[in-house]
Parts: sequence; structure tokens; C-alpha cells
Amino acid sequence: MNEESIKFLLESVHKGSCSPEDALTKLKDLPFEDLGFARLDHHRALRTGQSEVIFCQGKQPDHIISILNHLGAKAENVLATRLDLENANKILPYFPNAEYDSLARCLLLRPLAEPSIAGKILIMTAGTADLPVAQEAWVTARYMGHEVDTLFDVGVAGIHRLLGQRELMDRAEVLIVVAGMEGALASVVGGLVEQPVIAVPTSVGYGAHFQGLAALLSMLNSCASGIGVVNIDNGFGAASLASAIIRRITRDK
Amino acid sequence: MNEESIKFLLESVHKGSCSPEDALTKLKDLPFEDLGFARLDHHRALRTGQSEVIFCQGKQPDHIISILNHLGAKAENVLATRLDLENANKILPYFPNAEYDSLARCLLLRPLAEPSIAGKILIMTAGTADLPVAQEAWVTARYMGHEVDTLFDVGVAGIHRLLGQRELMDRAEVLIVVAGMEGALASVVGGLVEQPVIAVPTSVGYGAHFQGLAALLSMLNSCASGIGVVNIDNGFGAASLASAIIRRITRDK
Amino acid sequence: MNEESIKFLLESVHKGSCSPEDALTKLKDLPFEDLGFARLDHHRALRTGQSEVIFCQGKQPDHIISILNHLGAKAENVLATRLDLENANKILPYFPNAEYDSLARCLLLRPLAEPSIAGKILIMTAGTADLPVAQEAWVTARYMGHEVDTLFDVGVAGIHRLLGQRELMDRAEVLIVVAGMEGALASVVGGLVEQPVIAVPTSVGYGAHFQGLAALLSMLNSCASGIGVVNIDNGFGAASLASAIIRRITRDK
Amino acid sequence: MNEESIKFLLESVHKGSCSPEDALTKLKDLPFEDLGFARLDHHRALRTGQSEVIFCQGKQPDHIISILNHLGAKAENVLATRLDLENANKILPYFPNAEYDSLARCLLLRPLAEPSIAGKILIMTAGTADLPVAQEAWVTARYMGHEVDTLFDVGVAGIHRLLGQRELMDRAEVLIVVAGMEGALASVVGGLVEQPVIAVPTSVGYGAHFQGLAALLSMLNSCASGIGVVNIDNGFGAASLASAIIRRITRDK
Amino acid sequence: MNEESIKFLLESVHKGSCSPEDALTKLKDLPFEDLGFARLDHHRALRTGQSEVIFCQGKQPDHIISILNHLGAKAENVLATRLDLENANKILPYFPNAEYDSLARCLLLRPLAEPSIAGKILIMTAGTADLPVAQEAWVTARYMGHEVDTLFDVGVAGIHRLLGQRELMDRAEVLIVVAGMEGALASVVGGLVEQPVIAVPTSVGYGAHFQGLAALLSMLNSCASGIGVVNIDNGFGAASLASAIIRRITRDK
Amino acid sequence: MNEESIKFLLESVHKGSCSPEDALTKLKDLPFEDLGFARLDHHRALRTGQSEVIFCQGKQPDHIISILNHLGAKAENVLATRLDLENANKILPYFPNAEYDSLARCLLLRPLAEPSIAGKILIMTAGTADLPVAQEAWVTARYMGHEVDTLFDVGVAGIHRLLGQRELMDRAEVLIVVAGMEGALASVVGGLVEQPVIAVPTSVGYGAHFQGLAALLSMLNSCASGIGVVNIDNGFGAASLASAIIRRITRDK
Amino acid sequence: MNEESIKFLLESVHKGSCSPEDALTKLKDLPFEDLGFARLDHHRALRTGQSEVIFCQGKQPDHIISILNHLGAKAENVLATRLDLENANKILPYFPNAEYDSLARCLLLRPLAEPSIAGKILIMTAGTADLPVAQEAWVTARYMGHEVDTLFDVGVAGIHRLLGQRELMDRAEVLIVVAGMEGALASVVGGLVEQPVIAVPTSVGYGAHFQGLAALLSMLNSCASGIGVVNIDNGFGAASLASAIIRRITRDK
Amino acid sequence: MNEESIKFLLESVHKGSCSPEDALTKLKDLPFEDLGFARLDHHRALRTGQSEVIFCQGKQPDHIISILNHLGAKAENVLATRLDLENANKILPYFPNAEYDSLARCLLLRPLAEPSIAGKILIMTAGTADLPVAQEAWVTARYMGHEVDTLFDVGVAGIHRLLGQRELMDRAEVLIVVAGMEGALASVVGGLVEQPVIAVPTSVGYGAHFQGLAALLSMLNSCASGIGVVNIDNGFGAASLASAIIRRITRDK
Repeated sequence: MNEESIKFLLESVHKGSCSPEDALTKLKDLPFEDLGFARLDHHRALRTGQSEVIFCQGKQPDHIISILNHLGAKAENVLATRLDLENANKILPYFPNAEYDSLARCLLLRPLAEPSIAGKILIMTAGTADLPVAQEAWVTARYMGHEVDTLFDVGVAGIHRLLGQRELMDRAEVLIVVAGMEGALASVVGGLVEQPVIAVPTSVGYGAHFQGLAALLSMLNSCASGIGVVNIDNGFGAASLASAIIRRITRDK
Repeated sequence: MNEESIKFLLESVHKGSCSPEDALTKLKDLPFEDLGFARLDHHRALRTGQSEVIFCQGKQPDHIISILNHLGAKAENVLATRLDLENANKILPYFPNAEYDSLARCLLLRPLAEPSIAGKILIMTAGTADLPVAQEAWVTARYMGHEVDTLFDVGVAGIHRLLGQRELMDRAEVLIVVAGMEGALASVVGGLVEQPVIAVPTSVGYGAHFQGLAALLSMLNSCASGIGVVNIDNGFGAASLASAIIRRITRDK
Repeated sequence: MNEESIKFLLESVHKGSCSPEDALTKLKDLPFEDLGFARLDHHRALRTGQSEVIFCQGKQPDHIISILNHLGAKAENVLATRLDLENANKILPYFPNAEYDSLARCLLLRPLAEPSIAGKILIMTAGTADLPVAQEAWVTARYMGHEVDTLFDVGVAGIHRLLGQRELMDRAEVLIVVAGMEGALASVVGGLVEQPVIAVPTSVGYGAHFQGLAALLSMLNSCASGIGVVNIDNGFGAASLASAIIRRITRDK
Repeated sequence: MNEESIKFLLESVHKGSCSPEDALTKLKDLPFEDLGFARLDHHRALRTGQSEVIFCQGKQPDHIISILNHLGAKAENVLATRLDLENANKILPYFPNAEYDSLARCLLLRPLAEPSIAGKILIMTAGTADLPVAQEAWVTARYMGHEVDTLFDVGVAGIHRLLGQRELMDRAEVLIVVAGMEGALASVVGGLVEQPVIAVPTSVGYGAHFQGLAALLSMLNSCASGIGVVNIDNGFGAASLASAIIRRITRDK
Repeated sequence: MNEESIKFLLESVHKGSCSPEDALTKLKDLPFEDLGFARLDHHRALRTGQSEVIFCQGKQPDHIISILNHLGAKAENVLATRLDLENANKILPYFPNAEYDSLARCLLLRPLAEPSIAGKILIMTAGTADLPVAQEAWVTARYMGHEVDTLFDVGVAGIHRLLGQRELMDRAEVLIVVAGMEGALASVVGGLVEQPVIAVPTSVGYGAHFQGLAALLSMLNSCASGIGVVNIDNGFGAASLASAIIRRITRDK
Repeated sequence: MNEESIKFLLESVHKGSCSPEDALTKLKDLPFEDLGFARLDHHRALRTGQSEVIFCQGKQPDHIISILNHLGAKAENVLATRLDLENANKILPYFPNAEYDSLARCLLLRPLAEPSIAGKILIMTAGTADLPVAQEAWVTARYMGHEVDTLFDVGVAGIHRLLGQRELMDRAEVLIVVAGMEGALASVVGGLVEQPVIAVPTSVGYGAHFQGLAALLSMLNSCASGIGVVNIDNGFGAASLASAIIRRITRDK
Repeated sequence: MNEESIKFLLESVHKGSCSPEDALTKLKDLPFEDLGFARLDHHRALRTGQSEVIFCQGKQPDHIISILNHLGAKAENVLATRLDLENANKILPYFPNAEYDSLARCLLLRPLAEPSIAGKILIMTAGTADLPVAQEAWVTARYMGHEVDTLFDVGVAGIHRLLGQRELMDRAEVLIVVAGMEGALASVVGGLVEQPVIAVPTSVGYGAHFQGLAALLSMLNSCASGIGVVNIDNGFGAASLASAIIRRITRDK
Repeated sequence: MNEESIKFLLESVHKGSCSPEDALTKLKDLPFEDLGFARLDHHRALRTGQSEVIFCQGKQPDHIISILNHLGAKAENVLATRLDLENANKILPYFPNAEYDSLARCLLLRPLAEPSIAGKILIMTAGTADLPVAQEAWVTARYMGHEVDTLFDVGVAGIHRLLGQRELMDRAEVLIVVAGMEGALASVVGGLVEQPVIAVPTSVGYGAHFQGLAALLSMLNSCASGIGVVNIDNGFGAASLASAIIRRITRDK
């Protein structure tokens, strides 16, 4: 429902092919679908350039099935995140083509297509325990059409592991840094590269980590600049931001 | 000190025009300058694409003067942030061409040049009390060579003020949303646009705002995607990230 | 035990129909019932206009059964909140007419009566994961005799879903806004309507949401006015406040 | 800009008295005024039933003067809150009819009118140190046209001071309870009355009070129901909510 | 207004010497005095065994003067706590017999009387920086009629300083332990003595002390038993509790 | 190992009946028993007037059994607290006379003796969900030889339930107030009585209660004086402090 | 890859026995091994003097098995920490010589060797519930080749248990103090000894302990000096630091 | 008062040259000096190997003067820390040989002696704003007799500045890393060296730094091992720990 279509509507009123009452109704009739418990936002893709994604945490399995059916009928593919194994097993029988990634806790209604958008995203982790979050970012980025490189387990306690990978970093348009514990990797990477860096704190750590708070504060206070932070463990959010940046680069070419 | 120059160095060793000892020394001799109390990082511009900026909080005025002198001798311009009026008044007499912006609490060693990089940044605020942070972002972005539009006082309590400004939002490559209180503007903007959104929580609020914590948590938990968050009141950081994104767009064209 | 009855008592003493000693005893003899482990407050309905509700969290099933029996003997209906499925299954066999709502985690001793008090409450949610809290509010409001409308899944990331529902909002006397994540819906609704808004933060979110703290702080710091906040996930409290407001409106007519 | 005016606009297009282009422009032309640094929202009164109030904290005195001039030209009266004495003294010379209340830290552009709306608000405090917040609520409520009673220094450590004031409580449509320290007054009042109670935690206390956090948490966790909480020290917010409730009662009569 | 006086009142009604209406009024007419901004609770001494104390923080000097005048007219002496030097200097000219203790930040309307209640209180501090809080406790305890011993600067980093003072500890009925930093003195003393220990965390410390939070949590988690904790820096509260305990001991003898 | 025994020892050295070397050894040989994993402190009863109590949380069942055996061989009775049902069932078969109280989560090695110390403790709760903590206090107080009265479910939302119980309160030497949610009962009781009040915050509540933090802060900030606070849910600690106070009263008679 | 080897490499280039291209490759070819999901850092032992240790929390069992295989092929022994019983049981069948310590939650690939480094570490605990953390420190220290003494259950509530153990403390080069609750043992020990003290807060406690925060803050704020703090429950980190200190002592002899 | 002197005392009792009563007194008569408000601990140097240091924060200037006089009469030199300029100016006139370091906020009673203990401490900072804390560490370490190297402004955003300084790091026995913001320098250094690392978080940062909390949590959660953390801004504590470690190394040689 963009400016063009409103102009068109107003011209129809002007020409008499649409009554004022109908125009009023249409102005309100925006493209979302009411399932009673959920309002699907089909035109989000038009508005923000991103497909609808189902955030499953706290949702009932039957609600998720219903939403998948409705979205799946209109969209090429659908991504469901934060879906734990127990619920996935209740949902998968209804969608024979769906694929579930237990590490990422993500379900895709149909297999991933090949990347369709130029510009690489590099996903880095500080440790192997950060992998689930990195994998959520990977699935999301691929679902949104992007090429993704990965560089895992390059935490700053062994900084030469990172310094030897300069070339891989240079190839990327955007870098996603996933790190728990003290989250220092974001600062070190931010000091090395000119590209935008998206920092994802993870809840990996113990004691005074406070479920990711330590890494989150660390990343927000980075002494390097050019870093944007997303929520703790939010691999999906990091990939969405990376996608928004790369689509901007692509669009303007 | 990039791969090319190391290769060149190694070839000099191979050819005998440089001894191994000298090569070792040169490998360590990276381009920073030691002032005793500070190490200036002249090649940061090469490495991260950004000029050196002086973060003045906690620094002595005479240290700042010394750093400004050294950086100013080599760079086109220098930006000093978080410089309060009292210290600025001690420093300005030494730099007749310098300009001090008391709202942004920023000093520029020389006047701002015209924007040299295509691609607009739109800086938005929820309220007028967020202006100092927005101004720091504005000065930083302009110092880094970017065009900047502004849209102030469009908080969500009067959401039509925002909805009427669709066109301005569409013109920008990146949007910086500066908001205190509940910081909801970031979510609403994030739901409306396809461009990357950089959210800056401000310490504007009282009571249970806890100096910006409320807005920070709000932005990190945004239900919209495509949003990267920087530290509370960090207008500089937001502009740096915006600059990194736009330079990427420009570079690839 | 109101002023009238005290006056009556004092007049009985004056007339000699009641001895001072008995009067003293009666003055202390307030209408609550002692079960040993609990003191039921039968005259709360008179005092605050609300029926007794059993908050079950942390109570033993046999205690709940005993309280239900005692309250049920005197009241038209009884509501038990925060009752999980496991305990509900232990309690239901003793009350054949009782109904358990597993989404709301509420038990009603007898079926809901038709609404008896004019003035609608509108319960809104930002997402579908906020439904359990909304449902607790719904059951409570209906139990207290009110008419309730609902408007679910109208979060600010797709703000047109909300803007198209103006009429529904206008019909309500009070609006209850249930939202997790950044809780921005409360601010947007508060800026659109003239009615009182009751904001309920939910614990829906992850990472830096801190079990509802993010949404709570957001709502307390709303830039819109006319908003009262209740505890995290406290659908019952929101409905009680809505009920107090509407009964005031009704009473004065 | 309500449904009626849109309908009228569409009919003008239909009749040809307005071109589609003009209609599009008008649809966007909502009634706010752009001062550059601030966007005044003149139709907020229509939309939410409340007059524009200037929240002065963090705003420059000259900005406040400018906003007062613009709002004052169109509105009957204007209220400025969170204005400290120092800034008030800079502003008052420009507005000879203005009155400044140093306890409430509020400025009124013109003298208060007599109450015009039926239905009393009772403002209570636990201690005398809570008076500034109570006074902000008092000024706001009177500015919004309401009758206000007060009952100060009735904290629960001397509960008979409260219990003897039943009649005053009964006279009010809404009660505002302002309390610092442990904020227990809200719970005790909430358990005594049937009217809605608005609880305002104050930052009065020391040590583990954490600037109002103790009272805030206490009020959010009240064992009494029918209580809505506003931000710490937010007397303005409490009065706004009380006003919304009472205007609802009045409207429906 | 105890049971005896109510009985007497009811008998007067019975005998006809008091009308029911007058009795009702008297039942409500509890002994507090209304100054408009404050309600003085003259019968608190009867009810809780403690004299009225003025907590001055957040109160206006003229309010404090007024309260001192009213209370001073009826009580033997009055204590004002949390009175900073600046306000004390405004108040002292009105009360020629008053004494101000700048370390304790306390004002006494008249000189301290000799101790009148048997049973010593021992006030201990971990360091010399804890002295202001200890002094507030000392003044309060003496004002309440108690004998006080002191033992300062016996922190656990030099534990022999404490162990050599066994006799002094044994002489006390109650021990007040005032400590900042890690507050460990409370645990060590609690493990050594059989008397009740009152622990007062102070805000003395820096960095991760968080204004007394570290000492407070430490004392609440003491591995020793028989310890009651009061608020951070609350020397007055500690002395009040000590007084309540000792008056109990005295009373029962 | 008190002063007397040291004096005796030194006199033995003086008389030659004990060599200096043996004396040195004995001076170090204090009456605790080393089990390898635990050091039992048999003379704590002498030193602090309290019997050894086993805090079971985090201890292995076989360690608890071993400690019970060693302590049980020397003491009249032993109390084990924070023992959950699962571990209790592993331990009970070894101690046929032991009794386990599942509400209090306490085990007593032998049946409770009749109270042996004069002076009542009154344990009060705000709600029925606070009972487990109250019960831990009850068992501890009885184990320590005290008489205990109880007054349950007298929360401030129905304050008349409390006010009618004046006599019961007056009979106690010490009052223990157990309350979750906003913990306001402590303040109300503290304002009513002259005896020392021990406040126990409980973790009963939800949302912004933060596992007892709300009630804890509330109690620490009580506007009433004469209140000492113990850790969240620490019924044992409250009873220990009450015992220390009462034994002091008894001792001095 | 130290300075010597780089010099050697450069000389090879100088002599022509190594081409510049190969040298560049070798400069980057640092000794870590890429398993895809993890990069093993074989030369950490050279760089920091410590063997690789596997932190298992958050890692998949098959990943741990793979890492154990790779590390075990090159190292004398391997330590895996934070391995819970469930995962240990999945891993042990693959490594017949491995030993699992369920108290410490540690697995050793091969049996512990005899201590090979002079200089004792003394590990102390305040209570028996601190044993799991102390045991993790014990296993780590022994794995790293050190002699370890232990002194358990010497908390400050019975301070004589500690004071009698002076000799044991004097024998150690470094003391590790493991304590939960208020963590006061670290301060008392720090005040008694001249050796470095490493303080380990544990999550043992309840209520306002906040999973170790109370002990952590207590230790950071110790009034004794010469104390370094590690993360909550981080027995491994304490032993690593102790090892670094002792190896320094040994090395310099 | 060590074991030797107790043995000597006991032998005097044995020989009859000292009565048991006198011995008891002497056993209690430990070498501290009572100033009334402070107890000076002259034998701390013997006990912990460290000289008495005056922590001035919160102490009155005249108290500091008195303590300086008493300590200065017996010790070679005295260090006073946390002494702000205003108080220093009140104290300096009394001590003509004293020197005040305004950056470190430290006063030395007499000039620093040359280093007397072998083994270098390297003090590093991430930024120039960390200098005051580093300087406090420098003064303390030199006061305690140590050689100190410094390496300032080597934060991880320009990591080559650090990597080029390997030799300086290798020369130190202990490294003190002072860093604010995200504190990542501690992790990077900890991963590079084999020596013990002492991490000092500073309060340098803004917004979500929370006065040093971000850096503190970061350092406690470091992915590198061999790191001990001290309190925020605690340069004194870091130097004390470094001193304890080096004196151990020296002693054992």
C-alpha cells in the first residue's frame, strides 16, 4: 500500500470509478490476514524488504502450524526460529518438505535456495560454544538470499588464529561477530577492518556472566568504532541487519 | 603495513637490499607515534577507513592539546568528542581555526568541509531533549564526509508526526534513531523502512530510566529487525557505524 | 464493618441492649474466617468492590481445595489464578462444575456468567506469545462481570495493523495493552487514545529482556501519558484495575 | 484529522473541488507545527483529550521560551514541568503572567482556572519528603481542570493517621498515593478502597533505596489489586492518568 | 488510644455520659497533630516505646523548624537526623539550646541527658571511614537513654585487633557492627558472641561497592547467625533496634 | 576454650605439670572435629549460645549422614535445614528417631522437646504462600527451646485482620514477620509494636519481584524503626536472631 | 612461532633457501589445527606456559570427543572441565584410560602424574558446600603439575578453626580461598598472610546471594590487600593463576 | 606476635619469670596503637609483608594528619591513597618532606627510595584516560620497593601497538593491565604471556559502562586464563598483589 497505489485510488475517486466510501474502506484495508490469534503481515516484504519470519518461542505448536500454512501458501519459503526440538517434532509431520536444524533451532518450510544476492557476510565466533547462535545467523542469512563465509573459534586468547585470517575478513561486506564470555572479539575485529561489524553477545559463560550481560556490556562499550550490537543470542537479528546493509549496497549498484 | 608491503619487504631481504635484522625491526615498526602518555595510531585511517578521533572524557587538557598538535600536523582535520565547555575554553586559545559546538560537546580543529561521499544519513530524534546526542552524531557524520538530513521530535506519542515524513526516510541510506524514555521510536521506524537502522538510546528520562538503561534494553529487544544498537548517548558511535555502511555502499559502486 | 454498623453498635450500647464488653468484642469481630493456615476475607467484596481471588502460586493443592470450599460456600463464583496444570488436575476432581483454562492458568469454580456491567474493556497484545497473559486478564475481567473486546498481534513493527483498528479502540472505556519485547505498543496506543491505558509488560523476549524487565522499564518510561503499569505478566492485576475504573464509571451514572 | 475530515476530503475529490494531488498532500498535512528543533502537536488535545505539556528537563531555556510562545498563542494555558529554579528565572521575565511553583518545579503560563470537571482526585503522601512529587501531581491535576483533595503524611508506620481519614478517601473518584521508602502506603490504601489507586514511587530514601527502585518494586508487587503504577517521582504522569479516568467518568454521564 | 481507653469510652456511652455520636468522633480522634504538610504522631512513644524523630532529608528548613517547635513543646527532647550542615545553619538560630553534631549530621533540640536505661550497646566499626554512621547510631542510642561503648577500627584485615577486645564485647547486651567495604566484620563478630548483632552496611568503598550494596549483600548472607541487618548507612535504624531489644530486657526485669 | 581454661592451662605450665610445648599444642587444639570434608565446631554452643545446625543445601547426602552421626553422638538433638525431600528420603533410613518436616524442609534427629525458655516469639505471615519460610522459623525456634505463637495470612491488603490481633502481638517478646510480594507487613507491624521486629522477605511473588528482591528492599527501607532484616527466605536466621534476643532477656533476669 | 623462528625464517629467505612467497605463507602458518567447528591451539603451551584445556559447557558430546582425540594425540594429558555427568557418560566409553571426577565435573584423558613443580598451593574452603569448586581447582592444579594442600570448612563464623592452621598456610606459596555466602574468608586470610591470595566466590548461598554476586562483590571489596579475584565458581581459573605464579617462582630459581 | 614469641612467653611462665596472669595479658597485648578513632596496626608489615597504607577516602583531614604522624614516627615512609587535592592542600603544610601526586591522588610522607626488590612489574593501559589508575599502581609499586615499566595506550582497537611490544612484556615478572570501556586488553594480554596478569577495570566509559561494571564483568569472564581481577579503579590493590607475588619470587631465591 504505497504512495503510488494511494494516488491511483484517489484518481479512481476523481474519475468516479470508485466511490468515496469504498475508497475509505480500501484505505483501511491493508494487506494483513487475521487468524484470530495472529495477524499475518503479508506486505512486510514490500515495506521492509524482508520476508515474514515466525518467532516460535512462547507460541503453541498448533498456532505455529496454522501460521506456517497461511504464510506458506503465499510465500516462496518461510523461516521459523527459536523452535525447540520437542515442538519441531510435533510440527514436522505436517510439512514433508520442511527441514529442521537442531543446532540453530530453526525450521525452513522448504529447502534453501542458492544465494541470489551478491556480497558476502562473514560470521565469526570466539569459541565453539557460540556455534548455535552463529548457526541461527547462518540459516537466516542464507534464507534471506545471501552468501555466507564462516570463521569459527578465533577468540582473542589465541589472537594469532584471528590475525592469520585477514584475507577472509577482507572478502566480506559485513562481519558478524558472535562471542560470549568477555566478548572481546568484537573490539579486536572492529579495530582491524573498515567494514561494518555486527556484534552478537552470547549467553555462553558462567558465574558473573549473568546470562550474556557481561558480553553485551563489553560490546556496547567497545573501544573500536563501526560496531552495532544486537540482543544476546540473537543470531537472527544480526543476520537481518547484515541483510539490510547488503541489500542497500546491492540496490544502489 | 599491509600484505603488499610485507611482500615487498621480504623481496628486499631476498634480493639482499635489506638485512634480516632490519627486516625484523621494520616488521615491528608499525606507524604509530609515541607521546609517552599516548600512542597515536596514524594508520588507523588506512586500516579501518576512519580518521583518528580524540575521546576527551577523562583526559587532561594539556594532553588533549598535545594530541591535537600531533594529529593536526598530519591529518586534514581532527575531531575531539566529549569535550566539556570548561576544558574547551582552556584548549581553544591554542587553535585559532578550531570550532567548538557546545550542544554536541565536540571540537573540530578546522572548519567542516563540504560532504564528499554520496548517500544520505537521516538522524531522527524522539524528543528535543535528545538533541545533544543527535548533534554529536551530526558533527561526526559531517566530519567523516557524509550528507546528513535531520528529523527531530517525532516520538511515538504523536505517531502521525512520523508517518507524514515517509519521503524523508526513503531518501536516506541509513537511519540513526536517537531516543530516550522508552526508546520506542527505533521499533516503529524499524518496522517502516527497509534500510539499516542504528538505534542510540539516550539518558533522557527520569526515575526508573536508570540513566538510559530503559531505552537501551528497549532497543535491544525491538520487535522490528534490521536494527543495530550502540551505547547510551553514543552519537559518535552511531555516526561511525553509519559511515562504515555508507562507505561500503560507495566503494562497491 | 462500616461506619453505619459501628454507629448502630454504639447506639445499642447507649440503649443498654448491648454491654460495653460485648461491644468491644464485636468491634474486634471482623468478618474473616480463620482456616488456621489462611484467613479468608469475606467482606473484601464490600470494602473494595472485588470478590476474593485465590492466588495459587506457592500454595499446596489441599490448601487450595480447602479455600475453594469455604469461599465457594458463600460466594457466587470463585476465581483461582496462577494454577498450573499439574495442580489443577489434582483439584478438579473435587469440583465437578469447575472449569480450567490452561492458557490463562485459571480455574473458575462455576461457569462464567454473562457480563453484567456496562462499559467495554479492550485487551490488546503486541504478539501471539503474549496471549497467556492476555487470557488471564480476559478471564479475570469476565469473572468480574465486564464486557471484553480483544485485539491481538498488533505490535508496532507493523503499525498499520494497529492504525486500522481505531474504531475498536474508540469503543472501549479502558484499554489493556499486553506486550513483551520492547513493550512499545503501550506508548503508541497511549498517544492515540483519550481513555486510560493499563500496560502489562510480559516476560516474552530473550537475552537482554531479563524476564520482562525491558518491557517493564519501557512502559514506566513511556513518553505518552495516561498510562498505569502493573507487574510483569500480571494479567489479573490489569483486569482488576480496569474493573475498578469501570465500576466507578458505572456507579456514578 | 479524523475519519469525518477524511471522508469530507474524499468527497471533495469526488466532486472535483479538490484534485487528487492536493488531497494526497492534505492527507499528509497533519496539524503539527515545525519549530526546527521541536514539532508541536496541536491536535493532541483532540486525540488524547489532554493539552500539550512541556517536559523541560534537558531542554535549553531559549527552546522552552520559543515553545511556550507558540503553544501559548493557541492554547488557553500551558504547563511546563521539571523546570528547575535556575532555568525558571531565565524564562519568567518573558512571561509576566506566568507563575512558578518551586516545590513542584512547574511553571504555568497563566493563572490556574477554577476546576471545571466534576469528580475529586485525592492526593496522599506517606511522608513530608514526598511533597514535591505530590505537588507536581496537584498542579497538573488542577491545570487539567480537576478538583483535588490532599492528605499528607499518613505513612503506615502510624497507620491510625490513615484509618481516621476514611471519609476523605470515600469522597474521591481516584486516589493518587505518593510514597518513598518502602512504598507500603499504596498497598494499605489499595486494600481499603474500591476506587482505582495510582501509585507513585518517590526517590525519597537512602541506602538500599536505590533512588526509588525499592518503592517502585514494592508498588508493582502490591498484594492489593486495583493499583496502577507510574514512574518514580512522576507526579505529572499520575495526574494525567487520574485525569483520563475522571474524564471518562464525566463523559459517560 | 489503647484498649483501656476504648473500654472507658464505651462505658461512658453505656452510662449516658457520652453520646454515641461523640464516641464515634472520639474513636477517630487519635492523638496526632495536623500541621498541614505533616501529621505529628504524639502517641508513637506510647505505641512503640520510641520518641518521634525527624528524618530531615528532603524536607524544607522551614518545615523542620515548624515540626521542631511543635514536637519540642510536648516532648523532653527531639532528635533530627540526616540534617546537613547547610540546613543546620539555617535552623540553629531558632533554637538556642540545640546542639548539632556535624559528623553524625544530627541535631538535638536540648542537651543529652545521662543514660537512664541499664544495658550497654557496643558500637563497633571496621574502619575510621565508617565513623559518621557509627556516630549517628551513638547519638540516637544516647538520645533514647542508653549507655554506649565504642570499639572503632577493628576490621578483619587485622583480626587480632578484634580478638583482643573480647571483654568489651562481653559487657554489651547488643552489638552494632558498622562496616563498609566487604562488611566481613559482622560475620566474624557474629561467630564470636552470643548476643544479638545488628549489622549496618556503610557506603564506604569504591568501584564495585556500588554505594554500599556489596557490604549489604555480604551482611545478609553472613555465615554466622543471630544477625539482623538494617539499611545502608542507617545508624539511626540500628540504634532504634538496639533500643527496642534493650528496653525489652529492662522491662521484663 | 574460654579464658578460664587458658588460665588453667597457663597455671599448669607455671606449676610444671604441663610443658611449654604441650601448652602450645593445646592452645591450638581447639574443640572442633575434623571429618576431612568438614570441621565440626562442638564448642559453638559455648561461644555463641547456639547449637550446631547443618545447612544441607549443596552438601552430598553421605556427608550429611556423617555429620549427623558425629554431632548426634555429642549433642542432645541436631537440626538440619534446607534439606529437600529427595535427599531426606536417602537420609531418614539411617536415623529411625529422626523427623522430617517437608513444609519447612527441616530434619530433626530426635523429637522436639518442650519449650524450656520463657518469652514468646510470634511468627506472622502476610500470606499462605509464605508458610514454608514461617515453618522453618517455627522449627528452628522450637529446636532452640522457645515458645512460639503464630499469626498467619494477615497481609496489609486486609489490614483489619491484623488490627484485630493486638493482644497476640502484645504477648510476644519478639515478632518475626514473614512476607513476600511488597513486604509491607513489616512496616505496619513495626509501627504498631514496641518489641523488636525481625523481617524475613520471601521469594513469593512474580514478575518484578526478582525472587524476593522487592520484599527485601521494601523491608530494608521500612519507614518504621526497630526492624532488623535477614536474608530472603531465611526463616532459620530469623529464629536464630529471635533466640539470641530472648536468651539475653532470660539471662539477665 | 617466536622471534627466534622468525629470524631463522628471514635468514632462510636471505640465503635463498626459502622463497619470499613461502616465507609469507609460513609467517601466517601458525600452529593451530582446524577441525571446522574448532581451532585447536597447539602452541598455547609454548606461548602461555599452559596446556590446552577443554571448557565443555555448551559443547556437543561428539565435538568434545573429536577435540579430545586431536589434543590427546599430541599432548601428554588433556583436561576437560565443566563436563556434567550425563555428557561424561557419553564420552567415557571412547577413552578407556580417562577418569571422571563427578564432584569436580572434570575429565582427565589419562591418570594424573605425580607433581613435578615445587611450591605448594593451599586450597581453602569456607564450608563443605564449596567443595565442588575447590575440587575443580584441585584437579586443575594437579593436572598442571603442582603440589596441593587443602584446608576445608574453616569459615569465619568459627574463626578459631582457621587461626589454628597457621602452619599449613605458611607452607604454601599461593593460597586459593573458595567461599560462598558472604565470602569473608578471603579478607581474613588476606589479613593473615604475606603470600598472594586468589579468591574464588562460589554460588553457594540463598536469597540475596544472587548466584554468587554477594560473595563476588565482597571479595572485590576486601579490606585486605594482595588478593586477586576470579569468576564465580571458577576453580579452574584460580588454579591457572596459581600455576602461573608458581611457575614464575620456579623459573626464576 | 609469632609462634616464637609465644613459645618464649610460655617458657618464661614455665621458669617462673612471668606470672600466668601477666602471660594472659601479654597474649592479648598485640602490637597495635589506639588513637581513639583508629587502631594502627604496626605489625602488619611483619604479618603480611606490607607496610601500612592510609586509605583516605571518607576520612577527616585532621584524622589523616594524626595517623600520618603516628605511622611516620615508626616507619621509613608512609603512603596515603585516595586523597583528593582539596584535602591534600590542608595536609601538606604539616609535612614539609611529603610529596603529592595529583594524577594518582597519592601522598608520600617522604621521597620515594630507589627500587630495592628485583623483578619488574609492567603496568599497561588501554587508553590515556586510564592513566590516573595506572599512576596509583605505579606509586604504590614503587613505594613497596619494586621496579616498574609502563606501556600506555595499547588498547585492542589498534592491536599492532600491543603486538610490537612483546619484548617489554617478556621482561616483566607480573603484568598489570588497566583498562576501561570493554576491558578487552586483559584477555588479549592474558592470551599472549605466561606470567600472571592482574586486571584492573576502570570507570572510564559512558552510558552502559555503569561506572566500571562493564569492564569488571569483562575481565572476570576473560577467555584467557592466569588472570586475577581487583576492584574497579583499584590501582593500589593491583600493585599490592603484584608486590606479594614478586616478594614470593624474591624470597624463594
